[in-house]
Amino acid sequence: MRKAYLDHIAATPLHPEVLESMLPFLKENYGNPQSLHSSGQDALQAVENARERVAELINADPSEIFFTSSGSESNNFAIKGFALAQKNRGNHIAVSAVEHQSVLHSVKYLEHMGIKSTQIPVDKFGLVNLDELKKTLTPETILVSVMLANGEVGTIQPIKEIADFCAAKGILFFTDAAAAAGNIPVDVKELGVDALCLAGNQFYGPKGTAALYVKKGKRLLPFIDGGVQESGRRAGTEDVAGIVGFGRAAELAGKHMQKRADKAIPLRDALLRGLPEKVKNVVVTGHPEKRLPFHTSFCIEFVEGEAMLLNLDMNGIAASSGSACTSKALKASHVLLAMGLDHALAQGSLVFSFLEENTMEDIEYLLEVFPPVIDRLRQMSPIYPGNL
Amino acid sequence: MRKAYLDHIAATPLHPEVLESMLPFLKENYGNPQSLHSSGQDALQAVENARERVAELINADPSEIFFTSSGSESNNFAIKGFALAQKNRGNHIAVSAVEHQSVLHSVKYLEHMGIKSTQIPVDKFGLVNLDELKKTLTPETILVSVMLANGEVGTIQPIKEIADFCAAKGILFFTDAAAAAGNIPVDVKELGVDALCLAGNQFYGPKGTAALYVKKGKRLLPFIDGGVQESGRRAGTEDVAGIVGFGRAAELAGKHMQKRADKAIPLRDALLRGLPEKVKNVVVTGHPEKRLPFHTSFCIEFVEGEAMLLNLDMNGIAASSGSACTSKALKASHVLLAMGLDHALAQGSLVFSFLEENTMEDIEYLLEVFPPVIDRLRQMSPIYPGNL
Repeated sequence: MRKAYLDHIAATPLHPEVLESMLPFLKENYGNPQSLHSSGQDALQAVENARERVAELINADPSEIFFTSSGSESNNFAIKGFALAQKNRGNHIAVSAVEHQSVLHSVKYLEHMGIKSTQIPVDKFGLVNLDELKKTLTPETILVSVMLANGEVGTIQPIKEIADFCAAKGILFFTDAAAAAGNIPVDVKELGVDALCLAGNQFYGPKGTAALYVKKGKRLLPFIDGGVQESGRRAGTEDVAGIVGFGRAAELAGKHMQKRADKAIPLRDALLRGLPEKVKNVVVTGHPEKRLPFHTSFCIEFVEGEAMLLNLDMNGIAASSGSACTSKALKASHVLLAMGLDHALAQGSLVFSFLEENTMEDIEYLLEVFPPVIDRLRQMSPIYPGNL
Repeated sequence: MRKAYLDHIAATPLHPEVLESMLPFLKENYGNPQSLHSSGQDALQAVENARERVAELINADPSEIFFTSSGSESNNFAIKGFALAQKNRGNHIAVSAVEHQSVLHSVKYLEHMGIKSTQIPVDKFGLVNLDELKKTLTPETILVSVMLANGEVGTIQPIKEIADFCAAKGILFFTDAAAAAGNIPVDVKELGVDALCLAGNQFYGPKGTAALYVKKGKRLLPFIDGGVQESGRRAGTEDVAGIVGFGRAAELAGKHMQKRADKAIPLRDALLRGLPEKVKNVVVTGHPEKRLPFHTSFCIEFVEGEAMLLNLDMNGIAASSGSACTSKALKASHVLLAMGLDHALAQGSLVFSFLEENTMEDIEYLLEVFPPVIDRLRQMSPIYPGNL
């Protein structure tokens, strides 16, 4: 059976050069970076070298990069760390309605501590509108969070515009760029953000590697308390091999980004055009142009996402129906609901996202096997009008 | 030059079988465990298999194991998660004075939220005395934390006795077993603890891998908020390869624990006896018998730990002067001060801890090169009585 892995957004493989860079730190170079002896100092140097590579990818200073274990940890770190550090300045934060659950749940945590929050609505493409954002702000607002690109619908937000506005108001601005960084150009200075999250596993780096960029001079509390690591801002023995791989992945991402995008965009556009042509009652979700180069997303009417995923899997095709962090919750995606899709339609959500190894043949194969799958599932559906 | 790595407590190498178990998940098996397709399900199965291995090591149920990225994260998770979940029942927690910084700083975090705390004093061996513990408790006490074994002085606490006492009082009891689990027998049922932290990098597993055991039915809040991973208690894409390696390391630890201890104890005892014989004004720190099998610790009068470490390193010997999480803080260890050592003596702290590959020749080599190093450093010391 032909195989086509079309689930970049859930997991990318390690680039072979990433694995190669990690191996010495999984073998002979096993020192703890906090040890003063040479074995430790070698590990420290490797960690600091990786920090430079990650900083370069987003045009930051290495001292502004704090390694964490996941995008979710970085998001918790940013939202809780900023809000608790700025508590004396105000008690309100505003976050977009399409943020990752780790942002939304961090906000809920803060609500238990008396911090208020407002969700910024989005339009039907998932875009935050600056005028809507302005309406959510109060004199108490200390922090705004809007993600750079959404993993479920691919939409890329006008971050620079939002960041500039917040800066003018003296409000901290954080962006979750986990799905974006390493895949599209991200320049923290040009964007003007105060903090930004990125994740190695989104661009051929290891799982369990991520970072938080924090602009020099911006105060935030540590999240994992109690160690000298990461300039005292994040305790815990460093995952040296993972961090080294993350650094190498960042370097490769900078080098190959354009080539990867040039390869992915024709696949994306062929699928965004092709699937609605081949199958009736298919809606493209997310923005038609302002979207990640490797990302397509749809809602297929009258069929459930999970059933489609399992049937695609039987045909060798790996895809997802939204964020891997919520896939098993079996609830309609809060992102799609925020975009105004109705509940039933949101249940039929599907994301196909491409790796650099995917080809037009993969798209052709998908467009060949998927329509009959949908037909069959619809024939079994109690809600499909054709069956009524 | 001969090399002797005597710094188990800071970092252990990966066991070759651990690395071997990880490699498929760093190569072809790159799925996200939360994905519904077969690539994801393979990853999930590997994670759940590792969870069983880790559970077995400490006689827990797999559903009681939550993977984290470090002992520090597990400690934050336990202390903050329990205290915030039990806030309605009381607002006081008691922790031993020799806890890891990630426990002590988590307590400080909670103090900002109105939770009070008391430190339980220890004796000159670093042991918590149950009578002293009793004095620290109030009707408001909801949580007690005493570590199982201390990484800086090797002392093993009477955990069962403390846990039984807390259970009888209806107070939650947490133990940080990061330095102990995988190295000495740890049975959560026999100990009677409500939660326990363990770390893969302490027993030939990967850095960046750890877990929190939470007894079934004991409520604690998530620490990293916002995902379905780890039964909704810890968000973030799983470090699949790391977790698999952690599981394999746990399996190997169970199998080789006795053999490893039998090999380490003669080295430990030879060094604990030999160094004070060869060098004047050397104090063994920690308990003479109730200590980790692979662990020795000393205070060398009139010399600073850092200078000794660098000179040992020049002789090919890797050691540490306390916890890697505080080594660069250059402050006297809070553990040694809590044991009643004076500030100057505590500056001369040294830990030699053994891997399974270490031999008696390593100890002999250390005992040969170290005394002249101390002599030389003392000759340069402005406080050495011989120089006055």
